[in-house]
Amino acid sequence: MKIAVVNGPNMNLLGRRQPEIYGHRTLHDIELSLREEFADVEFLFFQSNSEGALVSEIQRLGYEEERLDGIVLNAAAYTHTSLAIADAVAAIPVPVVEVHLSNVFAREQLRRQSLIAPVCAGSISGFGAAVYSLAVRALKK
Amino acid sequence: MKIAVVNGPNMNLLGRRQPEIYGHRTLHDIELSLREEFADVEFLFFQSNSEGALVSEIQRLGYEEERLDGIVLNAAAYTHTSLAIADAVAAIPVPVVEVHLSNVFAREQLRRQSLIAPVCAGSISGFGAAVYSLAVRALKK
Amino acid sequence: MKIAVVNGPNMNLLGRRQPEIYGHRTLHDIELSLREEFADVEFLFFQSNSEGALVSEIQRLGYEEERLDGIVLNAAAYTHTSLAIADAVAAIPVPVVEVHLSNVFAREQLRRQSLIAPVCAGSISGFGAAVYSLAVRALKK
Amino acid sequence: MKIAVVNGPNMNLLGRRQPEIYGHRTLHDIELSLREEFADVEFLFFQSNSEGALVSEIQRLGYEEERLDGIVLNAAAYTHTSLAIADAVAAIPVPVVEVHLSNVFAREQLRRQSLIAPVCAGSISGFGAAVYSLAVRALKK
Amino acid sequence: MKIAVVNGPNMNLLGRRQPEIYGHRTLHDIELSLREEFADVEFLFFQSNSEGALVSEIQRLGYEEERLDGIVLNAAAYTHTSLAIADAVAAIPVPVVEVHLSNVFAREQLRRQSLIAPVCAGSISGFGAAVYSLAVRALKK
Amino acid sequence: MKIAVVNGPNMNLLGRRQPEIYGHRTLHDIELSLREEFADVEFLFFQSNSEGALVSEIQRLGYEEERLDGIVLNAAAYTHTSLAIADAVAAIPVPVVEVHLSNVFAREQLRRQSLIAPVCAGSISGFGAAVYSLAVRALKK
Amino acid sequence: MKIAVVNGPNMNLLGRRQPEIYGHRTLHDIELSLREEFADVEFLFFQSNSEGALVSEIQRLGYEEERLDGIVLNAAAYTHTSLAIADAVAAIPVPVVEVHLSNVFAREQLRRQSLIAPVCAGSISGFGAAVYSLAVRALKK
Amino acid sequence: MKIAVVNGPNMNLLGRRQPEIYGHRTLHDIELSLREEFADVEFLFFQSNSEGALVSEIQRLGYEEERLDGIVLNAAAYTHTSLAIADAVAAIPVPVVEVHLSNVFAREQLRRQSLIAPVCAGSISGFGAAVYSLAVRALKK
Amino acid sequence: MKIAVVNGPNMNLLGRRQPEIYGHRTLHDIELSLREEFADVEFLFFQSNSEGALVSEIQRLGYEEERLDGIVLNAAAYTHTSLAIADAVAAIPVPVVEVHLSNVFAREQLRRQSLIAPVCAGSISGFGAAVYSLAVRALKK
Amino acid sequence: MKIAVVNGPNMNLLGRRQPEIYGHRTLHDIELSLREEFADVEFLFFQSNSEGALVSEIQRLGYEEERLDGIVLNAAAYTHTSLAIADAVAAIPVPVVEVHLSNVFAREQLRRQSLIAPVCAGSISGFGAAVYSLAVRALKK
Amino acid sequence: MKIAVVNGPNMNLLGRRQPEIYGHRTLHDIELSLREEFADVEFLFFQSNSEGALVSEIQRLGYEEERLDGIVLNAAAYTHTSLAIADAVAAIPVPVVEVHLSNVFAREQLRRQSLIAPVCAGSISGFGAAVYSLAVRALKK
Amino acid sequence: MKIAVVNGPNMNLLGRRQPEIYGHRTLHDIELSLREEFADVEFLFFQSNSEGALVSEIQRLGYEEERLDGIVLNAAAYTHTSLAIADAVAAIPVPVVEVHLSNVFAREQLRRQSLIAPVCAGSISGFGAAVYSLAVRALKK
Repeated sequence: MKIAVVNGPNMNLLGRRQPEIYGHRTLHDIELSLREEFADVEFLFFQSNSEGALVSEIQRLGYEEERLDGIVLNAAAYTHTSLAIADAVAAIPVPVVEVHLSNVFAREQLRRQSLIAPVCAGSISGFGAAVYSLAVRALKK
Repeated sequence: MKIAVVNGPNMNLLGRRQPEIYGHRTLHDIELSLREEFADVEFLFFQSNSEGALVSEIQRLGYEEERLDGIVLNAAAYTHTSLAIADAVAAIPVPVVEVHLSNVFAREQLRRQSLIAPVCAGSISGFGAAVYSLAVRALKK
Repeated sequence: MKIAVVNGPNMNLLGRRQPEIYGHRTLHDIELSLREEFADVEFLFFQSNSEGALVSEIQRLGYEEERLDGIVLNAAAYTHTSLAIADAVAAIPVPVVEVHLSNVFAREQLRRQSLIAPVCAGSISGFGAAVYSLAVRALKK
Repeated sequence: MKIAVVNGPNMNLLGRRQPEIYGHRTLHDIELSLREEFADVEFLFFQSNSEGALVSEIQRLGYEEERLDGIVLNAAAYTHTSLAIADAVAAIPVPVVEVHLSNVFAREQLRRQSLIAPVCAGSISGFGAAVYSLAVRALKK
Repeated sequence: MKIAVVNGPNMNLLGRRQPEIYGHRTLHDIELSLREEFADVEFLFFQSNSEGALVSEIQRLGYEEERLDGIVLNAAAYTHTSLAIADAVAAIPVPVVEVHLSNVFAREQLRRQSLIAPVCAGSISGFGAAVYSLAVRALKK
Repeated sequence: MKIAVVNGPNMNLLGRRQPEIYGHRTLHDIELSLREEFADVEFLFFQSNSEGALVSEIQRLGYEEERLDGIVLNAAAYTHTSLAIADAVAAIPVPVVEVHLSNVFAREQLRRQSLIAPVCAGSISGFGAAVYSLAVRALKK
Repeated sequence: MKIAVVNGPNMNLLGRRQPEIYGHRTLHDIELSLREEFADVEFLFFQSNSEGALVSEIQRLGYEEERLDGIVLNAAAYTHTSLAIADAVAAIPVPVVEVHLSNVFAREQLRRQSLIAPVCAGSISGFGAAVYSLAVRALKK
Repeated sequence: MKIAVVNGPNMNLLGRRQPEIYGHRTLHDIELSLREEFADVEFLFFQSNSEGALVSEIQRLGYEEERLDGIVLNAAAYTHTSLAIADAVAAIPVPVVEVHLSNVFAREQLRRQSLIAPVCAGSISGFGAAVYSLAVRALKK
Repeated sequence: MKIAVVNGPNMNLLGRRQPEIYGHRTLHDIELSLREEFADVEFLFFQSNSEGALVSEIQRLGYEEERLDGIVLNAAAYTHTSLAIADAVAAIPVPVVEVHLSNVFAREQLRRQSLIAPVCAGSISGFGAAVYSLAVRALKK
Repeated sequence: MKIAVVNGPNMNLLGRRQPEIYGHRTLHDIELSLREEFADVEFLFFQSNSEGALVSEIQRLGYEEERLDGIVLNAAAYTHTSLAIADAVAAIPVPVVEVHLSNVFAREQLRRQSLIAPVCAGSISGFGAAVYSLAVRALKK
Repeated sequence: MKIAVVNGPNMNLLGRRQPEIYGHRTLHDIELSLREEFADVEFLFFQSNSEGALVSEIQRLGYEEERLDGIVLNAAAYTHTSLAIADAVAAIPVPVVEVHLSNVFAREQLRRQSLIAPVCAGSISGFGAAVYSLAVRALKK
Repeated sequence: MKIAVVNGPNMNLLGRRQPEIYGHRTLHDIELSLREEFADVEFLFFQSNSEGALVSEIQRLGYEEERLDGIVLNAAAYTHTSLAIADAVAAIPVPVVEVHLSNVFAREQLRRQSLIAPVCAGSISGFGAAVYSLAVRALKK
């Protein structure tokens, strides 16, 4: 099985940025524990602060990457402002699962709306780094 | 480990009601497969069409039920209209995970807002019956 | 022919509550005159102040009651606040006609919106107790 | 008894226009079946695509036509945009019943609001051509 | 001096329609008293229930009528819904004064907004039939 | 004098639920201190988590209970979502005083609107358990 | 006859402030020309930049000033923000006519709404200084 | 004990202004009956139509007046428009109770919102002159 | 090929009305240059200020006119207010292209919304009289 | 003549992405057919998924590219979210024509608003790949 | 150089009111440090809790004060509610700089909108007492 | 002292783009004059049209750049649309001051809202190129 994990803007700061909200684990820690938990899954990791680079990578994963089974997408701030990423997700034949580390519903109004969720297979938010693991399980089912 | 699974209005029709949206599995099927998948978890199941009965059961689970580790809550239509259930969830010392069978973000405007999500530990939607299993895993972490 | 007439909260006060708006006829009077006017129709009557009980009865009528030809539903205040009843109506294979004694369009803003109307076969409002008779005729056509 | 049936814009296309929504019966078919069903009622029929002509006819019916017992009004698209027709309805001493062939509540947002309903005696929508017959019965009561 | 007085839909019912709001004087009474009060002014009167006819007449007055000094316009219900009349008023080189018999600001929300007012020289409302006389005086200044 | 005190959903948790907001006194404590403070008043107490049960009890108090002088109503979460309770309050001939333990105006947007207040004799909020005592005094005046 | 002319904030700058919008005539010029035009009317003039002073003067005019026939009120910016002045106007037994020098309907959104208009006898706007004269005539009718 | 009672714009008209809404008792009557009912309380009374004077008095009461136990504030129309008074209330170390003679929730939309309530200890509305007495009792608790 | 060009209210003033916005060419000039540019196309021209007449002509073109290939529609002000014209366009089996001389997106809010665009094949705006020529080309493709 | 054709995010998927909406022609096909249809025009083509790259290219075209006659811009999803592209368009001295393959007015609410249209010379939408050809013609006029 | 510093409601409490938000420096401290920092500038200071007094002072500064180079205005709560002050600022020929001690953008919704900013030369907020010094520098440039 | 000056999209056009609004000074001119004015400050300059590049640079400045004392940020159009930049600003331990050359409050509605301001130390707008100098001074205090 092959799954891509795509992270959006400021996710590279994970572990450094407001750890009281986002926790102390870095993106690299998450990568390691996913590989450990799912030894039978081939993982691809990608992070970018650029909306355009995220659109291009999602396109590449959807059309160029061979035998990809799914994408776990944490679009971070672009979740709420990027129709372009939503269009890319809608355009590819690979299922995408939206994840958020924190419970976005408990935050300010603007962050309660997701432009990307309507075109995803499903959405998981609020359990910290565990959302990545849960999303992989969701894709396996 | 002990986990309660609480279902709201019309969930008793699962398997009969619009199966093209909600699937062919009944609530009982879901119960069986959860017990099978998580042999080490003691499960409590509850379903009601009544907002008040759901409030009372959530209170009972939170304050009367001994050593409960968490609640998986599919409040169905009350998700979008019931402040009373949200208050009950906020009032108890047990973590609650919100689940939805379908991707609520892809449905009509009114169903995109959850009154309950802000007071839950997290939210999982859109993978059909698998959301219950994912929620149990989330509570185990 | 068999038709159920379902009434929501405070409809049991009919004839007592603000008769200058709702008229002097009680729900029982309406029942009698329907039986008289439609001798060939078997009627089932149900009234409840509880949203959950209304959901359960609509489910029962839709799936348990044999050979039911339709439901006349006056959801009263729940018309404007209950997605759960709307879901129950949408979930059953029996046609439902929404009725209101008074012209809801001439009342305050909140009462001009119906959550239930979009899933009903049709809607009749504003002619007092005659709406029940008209709804039965609509179901007969 | 004497009743006028007034139809608004594009109703003359009935039977030709989107028959999957509006049915195959023409306005003339409806006229014939009303005359047949209510042999004791004298009917006046009027259709116009012009808002002004509808206002003038409603005025004429209200003030010039002798012994008129009521008007059945399907204002079609003007239902949602014409204060002028609403003013005409409010200005005359004859009761008016609003009808719609389709369930307007299940259509797009703009069509869920009626400027005319608040000044009508009542409103019937969603049963196809049967709404005319039901409206005549409502006026007879 | 030459002034046109243009009245919109349902104004021909003046004196008959809800006299407790609009008074007992007819449009003809108003015409007579204007001619009497302003002996030195040549008056042109026009009333129509049709938006299109009002647009055409305003165009005709603006471009065909010789030496016209101004238009007194009571667009009635079209005040709140007709961009076409507003465009006609904006298109002609003759000043237009908007009048309303009743105080539109004390009525329902929809009637508090005028599409026409922004392109008029000024607006007078709320003094009953006297608004026509005041508008003529305003045009004379 | 006879006064009923009606409490809505989650009020049975008083003293246990978020005591830093709602205080440490239970509903039973409040009952005792009311009886103590107003020895000359006969009190009836009722609490339910069910909207329908609250509607039914308000009806019963309004029409069946003899010589009732007033109702003190803390509808809790239903304050903001229940038109059915508002209709019940409006339907009975007994004055109702709305109370809230906390200052609802200082809370989130949804909790600043009361569907019930417009049909109550008055409203008291923000002084903790003292609101019940103040409401009884208000009814005595 | 006795009429008061009350002007609100910044009206004392008339003639100095943005003369291309408000004209070159000062408030004193307007006073002189009103006295000249209406020799038979006793005028009282008042201007203040203070909302409270305007409230107090309107109260004084309404209850203390003997035989006052009406008030011409240009509340300027307070037109759009002062409920207190609106309450004062509503509280007194003397008719008030609202005037505005410029056409407020052609200005920005906030200035298109008047809190005061709903409680005035009528409203005149957009003819420059002539609005005072027209308002006096309106009061004389 | 020492309590200040502060009244806002048009409250000096109490007893004269729309007595069918606000009752026949004057502010002076209220003062007398408060002194009578609470013989052990030292009262300070203040009324002004000026927003600025109210701000200054609230400041003075909060910082200059010795041993003041609380303020009963009826800000009248400023309740809905004055952030400055709200800021003054928030700035002082003395508890403030908001009161309204009428049930503001049953009035027009603009009057249902209070800018001042969020910074008060509590709010009492709808019992006529009795709200002052209730507010004093609330402060005593 | 046969194409109809339908123009709405005030378009007959083209060339006279605000030429700095709409240009100096009349509707007749546009007609001539279209005939010249597309010698192989048979053109039908229609202009009316009446919404009803436009509805009727669109119906006639759609159902009576033989072998019509398309309609170029400049509904002018009715673009933003007429559901009736939108219904007529939706009701006919002939493709309709919406055109606007000026860039409607750069004008005031109300003119940025088109009720007609959603049912048209496409929309062209902002190039002056050239939009007619472009629309004919669009229909030819 | 020299014209640039600039395409935004996901337009590189044209022909692959949802062909039932966007058609089977690729961006390269469009390029070929434009070169064929307009042999006398020199074309520059640019596509990017990055908002910043689009801003930079529009700047470069506007200020660096010699003798450029116009830009045809299909900003795709950025049409609805990018003020930065709108600013770039507004900042350059070259006319820009906005195009959309599908009729954006018939899609969901968010896609009906264009931030870019107000600063373009004009807008063409809904005819599939033909919009590029039409836009070139519009620039030639 | 001569500069006026005008402060609005509750600014006289500076140093006493919520020092954790507004700091411990009083208005007098700010005055002293401004005089010290800008020895070459003649300063005028004014503070009032009254909207009307602020309007009058701004008028006086703009038209009576000789050789005034600019005004630094902290309108405090009136920033968000006073059109009258905005009108005064717009009416005078002297540049005005708006300042706020705290970052108004990080506060509640109502405080994020400024009625005064649109007519000021510029706006500075969020640096505590330093905003006055920065504003003086801005005026010097 | 070390301060970074970060400029967003289209700021590289400064001096060329609409100089009547933004002035004739280029970004380079501003850089020179800042270095001249603040000889004791070490400056870092960065400009990009790319949202992602701005996010990355702000991160780099916040976490990699040694001893940085603050950032002056003119996010231009991204001010109103970029949550990602706001998240980056919130994520770093260095104070950020928002600046705008023009008075954003006097521009269209969309440009009056800043997503970035709430997480900045303060905001300065409307004095042209001087805002950079003022922001440096603000950071020095």
